[in-house]
Amino acid sequence: MKPSATTVAFFGPVGTFTEEALLTEPDLAAAALEPQPTITEVLESVSRGDADLGFVPIENAIEGTVNATLDGLIFDFDLMIQREVVLDIHLHLMAQASTKLSEIRRVVSFPVALAQCRKYLAEHLPQAQAVAANSTADAARELGEHPDAHAAAIGPRVAADLYGLSVLVDDIEDHPDNQTRFVAVAAAGVPRPTGHDRTSIVCFQRADRPGSLHGILGQFAARNINLTKLESRPTKRGLGDYCFVIDLDGHLDDELVGDCLRDLRAGLAEVKFLGSYPAAGQHGPDRRREADDAWREADNWLGALRAQIG
Amino acid sequence: MKPSATTVAFFGPVGTFTEEALLTEPDLAAAALEPQPTITEVLESVSRGDADLGFVPIENAIEGTVNATLDGLIFDFDLMIQREVVLDIHLHLMAQASTKLSEIRRVVSFPVALAQCRKYLAEHLPQAQAVAANSTADAARELGEHPDAHAAAIGPRVAADLYGLSVLVDDIEDHPDNQTRFVAVAAAGVPRPTGHDRTSIVCFQRADRPGSLHGILGQFAARNINLTKLESRPTKRGLGDYCFVIDLDGHLDDELVGDCLRDLRAGLAEVKFLGSYPAAGQHGPDRRREADDAWREADNWLGALRAQIG
Amino acid sequence: MKPSATTVAFFGPVGTFTEEALLTEPDLAAAALEPQPTITEVLESVSRGDADLGFVPIENAIEGTVNATLDGLIFDFDLMIQREVVLDIHLHLMAQASTKLSEIRRVVSFPVALAQCRKYLAEHLPQAQAVAANSTADAARELGEHPDAHAAAIGPRVAADLYGLSVLVDDIEDHPDNQTRFVAVAAAGVPRPTGHDRTSIVCFQRADRPGSLHGILGQFAARNINLTKLESRPTKRGLGDYCFVIDLDGHLDDELVGDCLRDLRAGLAEVKFLGSYPAAGQHGPDRRREADDAWREADNWLGALRAQIG
Amino acid sequence: MKPSATTVAFFGPVGTFTEEALLTEPDLAAAALEPQPTITEVLESVSRGDADLGFVPIENAIEGTVNATLDGLIFDFDLMIQREVVLDIHLHLMAQASTKLSEIRRVVSFPVALAQCRKYLAEHLPQAQAVAANSTADAARELGEHPDAHAAAIGPRVAADLYGLSVLVDDIEDHPDNQTRFVAVAAAGVPRPTGHDRTSIVCFQRADRPGSLHGILGQFAARNINLTKLESRPTKRGLGDYCFVIDLDGHLDDELVGDCLRDLRAGLAEVKFLGSYPAAGQHGPDRRREADDAWREADNWLGALRAQIG
Repeated sequence: MKPSATTVAFFGPVGTFTEEALLTEPDLAAAALEPQPTITEVLESVSRGDADLGFVPIENAIEGTVNATLDGLIFDFDLMIQREVVLDIHLHLMAQASTKLSEIRRVVSFPVALAQCRKYLAEHLPQAQAVAANSTADAARELGEHPDAHAAAIGPRVAADLYGLSVLVDDIEDHPDNQTRFVAVAAAGVPRPTGHDRTSIVCFQRADRPGSLHGILGQFAARNINLTKLESRPTKRGLGDYCFVIDLDGHLDDELVGDCLRDLRAGLAEVKFLGSYPAAGQHGPDRRREADDAWREADNWLGALRAQIG
Repeated sequence: MKPSATTVAFFGPVGTFTEEALLTEPDLAAAALEPQPTITEVLESVSRGDADLGFVPIENAIEGTVNATLDGLIFDFDLMIQREVVLDIHLHLMAQASTKLSEIRRVVSFPVALAQCRKYLAEHLPQAQAVAANSTADAARELGEHPDAHAAAIGPRVAADLYGLSVLVDDIEDHPDNQTRFVAVAAAGVPRPTGHDRTSIVCFQRADRPGSLHGILGQFAARNINLTKLESRPTKRGLGDYCFVIDLDGHLDDELVGDCLRDLRAGLAEVKFLGSYPAAGQHGPDRRREADDAWREADNWLGALRAQIG
Repeated sequence: MKPSATTVAFFGPVGTFTEEALLTEPDLAAAALEPQPTITEVLESVSRGDADLGFVPIENAIEGTVNATLDGLIFDFDLMIQREVVLDIHLHLMAQASTKLSEIRRVVSFPVALAQCRKYLAEHLPQAQAVAANSTADAARELGEHPDAHAAAIGPRVAADLYGLSVLVDDIEDHPDNQTRFVAVAAAGVPRPTGHDRTSIVCFQRADRPGSLHGILGQFAARNINLTKLESRPTKRGLGDYCFVIDLDGHLDDELVGDCLRDLRAGLAEVKFLGSYPAAGQHGPDRRREADDAWREADNWLGALRAQIG
Repeated sequence: MKPSATTVAFFGPVGTFTEEALLTEPDLAAAALEPQPTITEVLESVSRGDADLGFVPIENAIEGTVNATLDGLIFDFDLMIQREVVLDIHLHLMAQASTKLSEIRRVVSFPVALAQCRKYLAEHLPQAQAVAANSTADAARELGEHPDAHAAAIGPRVAADLYGLSVLVDDIEDHPDNQTRFVAVAAAGVPRPTGHDRTSIVCFQRADRPGSLHGILGQFAARNINLTKLESRPTKRGLGDYCFVIDLDGHLDDELVGDCLRDLRAGLAEVKFLGSYPAAGQHGPDRRREADDAWREADNWLGALRAQIG
C-alpha cells in the first residue's frame, strides 16, 4: 500500500504522443497513470480532486492551439500549470506487415495527424481516402484488432508497438520540425521560481476599450518582458470578441512580472492567471534578475521619498 | 456549351452548414455548384482555375478559426476573398423516427459539432459514446443509409431532410448564439468599395523584431482604423513563431487604409493581402470617409509644400 | 530671539509680481520676508538653511519656463516644491504724473515684460526705445528716483505705488489672459495628499535609448494619469540633449502614481522628484481614487496568487 | 540700382555672436548686411520682403530656445528655414586695458551671457554687480564709449576688437562646450535635398486629445525617423497648453518623411512646417534612403493590389 502516490490523469488512450511525452518525465512516469478519453475529462478529474495532476497537449507547432485544453483552462476550470514538456513529433505510416503501399485505400488517424501528412498522402497515396478516428492510438488499435490489407494508420511508433502493426514508412509528416507542447496542471499551487520560468496568463479585452491589446502589449514592452506566445481565442460571446493567451519569460514571484500583472489588471484588462512554471528548453542569460535590480533600486527610491510625506 | 456560367466549388458534401450558407446568396445558389471533400481541394480547385469561386468556412464563434481555410489562404494559395457570409448555427439531434433518447448509445458527428454539444451530451446522453465522422452530413448520411436504433447524429436540419432522419431535439448546441463565417474566394480581383467594406491581411513578424506586434497595432491606432479581428496563427516554423490575421474596417481603395498597409509593409512586417470585400451585417456611420477627408487635406498640404522645393 | 517664525526668501526686489503673488498667501505674507536679488540666491538661501521657504516664479503662460528656476531645481539644488500659486499678470505703463504719452522716448522694464507688450509699444509708442532693467521693480524705482519726462516704466501696480509713479495706461500686455505660476520650495518634505494634488518630476533620457520619451509617455497613458505640463529643457551637455519636466495630476502617496514613478525609474529614465503639493485652481471629479481602487484590487489579487507559491 | 545683391537682415548690432556666426558663411558674408535691433524686426523685415534672408539665433545649448525666434516662427510669421549654422560660444571678460580684476564693481552684459558666467563671477568677482544690457555688443560699446576703470563687459572677441577693449580673461563661460544654433530664414522656398537634411515642424495638440504627444511620437518611432530636437512651447492660450517643435533627420522630399507629416496632419495634430534644410555638422550613414527603398517597394505592392480593384 502506498498511501500518498501521485495520480496523474492524462489524455489517452495509451499509445499516443501524450503518453510518449508523459513518459519522458521520470517522476510522472512513476506515478499512478489514468488515461481519460477526452481532454475535458482530464481537466475535470483534476478539478474534482480525483487526480493530483492532469497531463494534456496544449499547442502544436503546425496546428496551433489545442482548443479543448486552452478553452478548458480559460473558461471552464481554474487550474494551475505546473510544468511544460515539449516533444518532437514524428508520424509514421503503419499497417499489417504484409500491406503494400499501392494497395492502401483508406488511411485512418486523428484528423490533426491526417492534416499534418496532407502532402505526403497526396503524393504517395493519392488513391487512399482519409478517415477520421478519435485518436492516433484508436486508429492503430482499430487496425490491429481488425486487420485490413487495404488500410493503414498514422501515428506514433509507440502505437505500432502496442497494437502489433509494422511501420511501413517513417516520418511522413509534411513539416519535419514539428513539436507539441504539453502541460501538467494541478488544482492549485505555483512552483517556486527556478531562474528560467515561464508565466501564462489570459487577458480579456474590455468591450469598451477596443484598442486595448495595443496598451496591453505596451505594458510588456515598457518593462522589456519577453513574450514567447501570443494567441487569440474567441470568447464564445460572438464573432470578433477575443481574449489573448500570453506566455512570458519570468515568474509571478519576480517583482517586475508581478508589477506588470498588477498594472494590467488594474487598468487594462481582466487577467486570468494560468501559472508560473519552469520553462522547457535552453535559455539565454537571465534578463529577469537585472530588471529586478533596477526595480528594487527604484522601489527603495520611492520608499525614501514617501518617508518625507507629512 | 456553357459560355458564362459561374462555377462554385464548396466544402461539401451537400447537407452541411457550408451548403446552407451558400444557398443564402442567390447568385451563388444559381451557379454550377461543385462540392469538394476537403477545404484544401476547394482552394486548389479555384487556384487551378477549375472553379471561379470557392466557398469555405473560415471562423466559428465558438471554435475559432477553421485552420484548413486560414492556413490555405496564408501559406499555400494566393487567393482573394470576394465576400463574407455569416450564418447562425443551430445543431440538432437526429435519428430514425422511432429512436428513443434513452436508448442512444452512440452519437456521431464532425468532432467540432460534437464539441459544441458537449454539455448537452453530458447531461442528457451520458451513456452515449461520441464517434467522429468526416462531416455533419456524413454522420447523417451514414445513419440514413445504415439505420441503427441505438445511434444518433448531430447536424444541420438540411442533413436530416436530405437523409431521411427525424430531428429528435432542436438546438442542442451549448452556446445558443453560435455563428459561422464563410468566405467566397477567387483567384484574383478585388471588389469595388461599397462604403461598408472589410479588409483582411496577414502580418508576419520579422524575426529580428520580436515586439513588432505592438508597433503594428500602433499603426492602426494612430489612424483610428477599427480592427474587427485579430488572430494569431503559428507559422509552422517552430513553437512561438506567429503571424497575425487582421480584419479591419475599410477598403484597399481607401486612402487611409492603403497608406496604413504601405507603412506596415515598408517598416514593420511582411504583409500578405487577403482581400477587401463588402462587410456582412449592419454598420454604424461611416468613419472611413471622414478620415479620408482629413487625409486628403493633409495630402494637399504636403503637395503644396513640396511645390516649394528647389 | 525668534523661536519659530518662518523665513521666506523671495525673488525680489519688493514691488514685483513675485511679491504680489506671495502676498496672496496669508501664512507666507505673515512670515519674515527676505527679498533676494536673483532666483539663484533664493534657491541657495533655502538650500543652505538660511530660509525655510523660497518663493520664485517658475512659468509664465506667454514666455514659458523661467529658466533660472527650473534649471536650479533640475541641476543645481535638491529642493522640494511645497505649493504652487498662480497669479493673473497685468502690466501697466507708469511714469511721472505729468508725462505725456507722445513725449515718451524710452520705455524701461525687465526684458520679459517689454516682450509681453511688444505690440502695444509698436502701435502706441513707436518712437520709444526699449531699455532693459534687472526687474520691473528696478525700472520703476529708477524712474521714481530719477524723474524723467521722456521715460516710462512697465510693471505691476504695486511698483507704481511703491515708487510714487502714476499709471498712465492699464493692462498694456498683448495677451490679456497672461498668468504666472510661482512655487514655494523647501529643503525637504512632501505635503500630505489633499485629494487635488500635483506632482512634478524630471525625466532624463538615457543616451542609449533615443526614443524613450515615447515609452515614458506610454507609462502615463497606460495608467490614465493626466499630464498638466510637459517641458523640454536642454541638459547643458550639448545641443539636442534634453530632459523633460513633467507635471501630473496626483500625489506621490497615490499607489498609482508611486507605481508609475517606480516603473519609470526602473526601466526608462533617470527620474528626479521635484515634489507633490496641492494643485492650484479648480479641478474635476477625482480620477485618482478610482484608479487606486482598481490598483488595490489588483494588488490583492497578486498577493493571493503569490501566496500559492512554493 | 541694386540688380541682384542678396540682402541679409540679422539680429544686431555688429559685434555679437550672431554676426560672428553669419560671417562663417561666405555667401552670407558677401551679401548686403543689415543689422536690426530685435529678432522680431529681422523676421518682419524678411516677411515684408525688405530683406531676402534673416539670420537669427534659435537655440543655445545652455539656455535653450531663443523664445523670440521660435515664437516668431511659430506664431507670428510664415517663414521657411533655409539653413542652420552652429557656432561654438566663448565668452570673454573685457575692459579698458588698465582695469584690474580686483577693482571691477560692475559687470555689464546681455542677461543670458551674465547667466552663463554665473559661477565664474561668483568665484572671481564676488564684489561686482551684474548689470543688464540689450546685447553683449551694447555692453562692450557702452564701456568703449564711456571708459570706466570699475566696469567690465562680457562678450565675444569681435566686440572687444570693435570697441577698443582688452580681453582680461578668456573663456569665462561656466560650461566650456557651449554652442548656439542660428538659422537663416526666407519668406518661402525649400532647399533641395542634399542627403543630410533636417526638417523642422511644429505640432499643436488638439484640445480634445490630451495624450496626443504619445501618438505623435509613435508616428516617428513607427518609421524609425530620428528626432534631433523636441521642444515644448506654451501656445499663449493659457498655462499648460503646449505645442511641440520637432526637428527630425530627413527632408520633406523624402517619401518617408512626407508620408509621416501627412499622417500627423491627417490624424493627430495641426502641423506647421518650418523648413527642410541641410543639416549642420557630420552625420552617420544615411538611414533615409534605406527607409525609402522599403517604402517604395511597399508603394509598388500597394499599386499592384489596387490595380486589381473592380
